[in-house]
Amino acid sequence: MSRHSRLKNKLTYPILILVLSLSIALADGTRPKAGTTEIANYEARYTEDGQLIRPNNWREWVFVGMPVTPNALNNGKALLPEAQAVYIDPESFRYWQETGRFRDGAMFAVELTTLMSDGANKDGSTRQLTGRGFFQNEFSGLQFAIKDSKQFADEPGNWAYFSSRIGAAEREYPETMTALPTKNCNSCHQAYGSQDWVFLQLYPVLKAAKPD
Amino acid sequence: MSRHSRLKNKLTYPILILVLSLSIALADGTRPKAGTTEIANYEARYTEDGQLIRPNNWREWVFVGMPVTPNALNNGKALLPEAQAVYIDPESFRYWQETGRFRDGAMFAVELTTLMSDGANKDGSTRQLTGRGFFQNEFSGLQFAIKDSKQFADEPGNWAYFSSRIGAAEREYPETMTALPTKNCNSCHQAYGSQDWVFLQLYPVLKAAKPD
Repeated sequence: MSRHSRLKNKLTYPILILVLSLSIALADGTRPKAGTTEIANYEARYTEDGQLIRPNNWREWVFVGMPVTPNALNNGKALLPEAQAVYIDPESFRYWQETGRFRDGAMFAVELTTLMSDGANKDGSTRQLTGRGFFQNEFSGLQFAIKDSKQFADEPGNWAYFSSRIGAAEREYPETMTALPTKNCNSCHQAYGSQDWVFLQLYPVLKAAKPD
Repeated sequence: MSRHSRLKNKLTYPILILVLSLSIALADGTRPKAGTTEIANYEARYTEDGQLIRPNNWREWVFVGMPVTPNALNNGKALLPEAQAVYIDPESFRYWQETGRFRDGAMFAVELTTLMSDGANKDGSTRQLTGRGFFQNEFSGLQFAIKDSKQFADEPGNWAYFSSRIGAAEREYPETMTALPTKNCNSCHQAYGSQDWVFLQLYPVLKAAKPD
């Protein structure tokens, strides 16, 4: 190895670390940049005992669709109360646009909200300027679906599912979440998800972004 | 000034330039980066005769909420058919998080979809695995609301509104859009928007992101 190469090697790591540290520092700033807004890419992280460490900026991920299942139409207790805003992490969205597949590491977030309710109609609908319908009220829960061949090697399709609920008085979701048993979520997703355990049929943004 | 300080000053600028150059180089690539995904910031652009040149990546903006007004609950013809996914451009979202205000240049996108329909229920609801409810079907329209003190100096609040509809057979929205007359949109937004012409009451994500 030449002296020049040795010097280069010696310098590469400190400079790389410096650049990365400063890039992260810049990326962490809250001010928007002139040309682009940076959205942190999330790779799921876990505690030593395998709990998911909750990501913290899913509301900046790519929204793909929102099924609405009012309590009033589901015997007062919808399985997932009541509106379910579904997001995919931005890196996985780009991968989907390019390949039409969900990458190893893909993460979906599902944020639940209750619906506004005034008791005026039996179906639970209320009225706003734009007409009679269903309008989101308070956040009530947060779920994740994660495809990870290392962490969930034993799960069908390598997908695992996480769920937390909060009441109206609470403002914060838990910091860590435990994967649900395979039969609770994975089995239905496997049977009825239209592609790779995902209910693609409910997500117009993903359907439109899939390459031909 | 100590020798140490002088050395530090001497080093600061080259390192800063190096870091900035590399950060910009990293920011310009189209592939997703290890650390962040870049979302282009949009400043609205207009043709010479004042038409809005349609932005092209509103589906990567920050989703803020989705009112649902089924046709079946609105005499077969909802004012905005039928689900309205509302987004704010990412730069304006960051500004909102910091200030609780909408910046000059703020853009909202509203993408309309029809709802799945099978005629089984009078209220228009259908059934999916998660229960009875309302599920998005096909894209049917695209709208923008833009606050721009230069371009819309004469509009109340400097907000202007744009709308386009597409039928099921069409896949593309028009390339340019003409601002709607003040009485069509602005007047209602002015009267009923809970902050700065915006129907904040319908957008849980904006309500939660507003600083105390």
